[in-house]
Amino acid sequence: MENEHTEAVLKDGERLDELHRNGYRIIQDPKRFCFGMDAVLLSGFAKVKPGEHVIDLGTGTGIIPILLEAKTKGEMFTGLEIQPESADMAARSVRLNHLEDRVRIVTGDLRQAEQIFGASSFHVVTCNPPYMTDLHGLKNPSEARAIARHEILCTLQDVVSQASRLLMPGGRFYMVHRPFRLAEIITCLCGFGLEPKRMRLVYPYADREPNMVLLEALKGGRPRVTVEKPLIIFQEPGKYTDEIYDVYGY
Amino acid sequence: MENEHTEAVLKDGERLDELHRNGYRIIQDPKRFCFGMDAVLLSGFAKVKPGEHVIDLGTGTGIIPILLEAKTKGEMFTGLEIQPESADMAARSVRLNHLEDRVRIVTGDLRQAEQIFGASSFHVVTCNPPYMTDLHGLKNPSEARAIARHEILCTLQDVVSQASRLLMPGGRFYMVHRPFRLAEIITCLCGFGLEPKRMRLVYPYADREPNMVLLEALKGGRPRVTVEKPLIIFQEPGKYTDEIYDVYGY
Repeated sequence: MENEHTEAVLKDGERLDELHRNGYRIIQDPKRFCFGMDAVLLSGFAKVKPGEHVIDLGTGTGIIPILLEAKTKGEMFTGLEIQPESADMAARSVRLNHLEDRVRIVTGDLRQAEQIFGASSFHVVTCNPPYMTDLHGLKNPSEARAIARHEILCTLQDVVSQASRLLMPGGRFYMVHRPFRLAEIITCLCGFGLEPKRMRLVYPYADREPNMVLLEALKGGRPRVTVEKPLIIFQEPGKYTDEIYDVYGY
Repeated sequence: MENEHTEAVLKDGERLDELHRNGYRIIQDPKRFCFGMDAVLLSGFAKVKPGEHVIDLGTGTGIIPILLEAKTKGEMFTGLEIQPESADMAARSVRLNHLEDRVRIVTGDLRQAEQIFGASSFHVVTCNPPYMTDLHGLKNPSEARAIARHEILCTLQDVVSQASRLLMPGGRFYMVHRPFRLAEIITCLCGFGLEPKRMRLVYPYADREPNMVLLEALKGGRPRVTVEKPLIIFQEPGKYTDEIYDVYGY
């Protein structure tokens, strides 16, 4: 499967996964953090128009810009990542797929995103942020996994305020998050001038509570949100619904 | 079906409908406004504990206090209604069902509710408010139907601000509304110190957009909302799901 070239690209402990899009593959390190269904669903929910410039805040492995490059006709996809090891891995995935002309990985703190890129410089911002505020019981807050899951290096407010600054008027912000924080999320978005326009709840089964929420917010939009039909993950245990197979590209 | 006594209770154009709860019936006038599934679902979603005092803002026919009296062990149920004809009809339904000891109908403007009842005087506030802000094309804004559907005599902000004032700390506000206003609703609730704690979306079919949202907000609560499993109305055209049959008491 892996030829000498790709083996040379991998560092110790890393592996190469198929993305089922354009033959793309992605480098991941299971000891650090592997992308989840959240990132895949966000890349299916986000809409990028031809020629648009997109930035993904806290891009990790680079999964979201790489999938969006495959799925849309956007012109340029930027992934901003604070952890140098993750940014390096993402940059190697970009080179491996020969996407250097359309995807760039920048190492930096999303809380400084406006200073790095300038205000109103993107049509679209995406983010799959850390979900958890609770830092109790965290044994190692410097661990990559903890940083991806908990609000250690950035809060919801950091993400939303930077998204608002980076977007040009009429620009769109796409985020995946946990439903239990929905009220905070909506209040925060509205507080930073990002009006929720589309929302979709993701339910593991049709008769269970949702475990993810996908949101689109419009910079400077007027209040009116479309709550879309439910996104159901499993039709039965072990068997995805057609929509999930479709978004994964199987 | 109707004996002389009940016929004497009805005015011209009015009819008597079964509520399938405790043998209760309700007076409605199809020319004015008949209660919808919204009110029935709200009465199933709201939780009233033994001994609690409840007020329904803009009670119309009195459907919500009457159903909550039947379904819960709350002590006192108040319905506030601005239109004298509707309040009179609701009061006659209360007498018809011999509920005068537990249900009272008050004629008045919900925007004056705090002055009428006093601050922090209820454990629970319910409301099935007018959904539409758009007053364009309204031929007769004084018509009962228009007042029930459009924000003519009260806005979302009026409802939420009064609910917050009427509730004691830890009190609960229950509202049914349209999903397209969800962002405004949540921002408004949080702005008046009512923290969303439970939310349920109502979908006509499992694969359609939701057309109602049920919300519980806690006065002075901390941010964390449970989004519940979907409430699906129809399993197939003309056939309700078991949950809907159950809430209707069939």
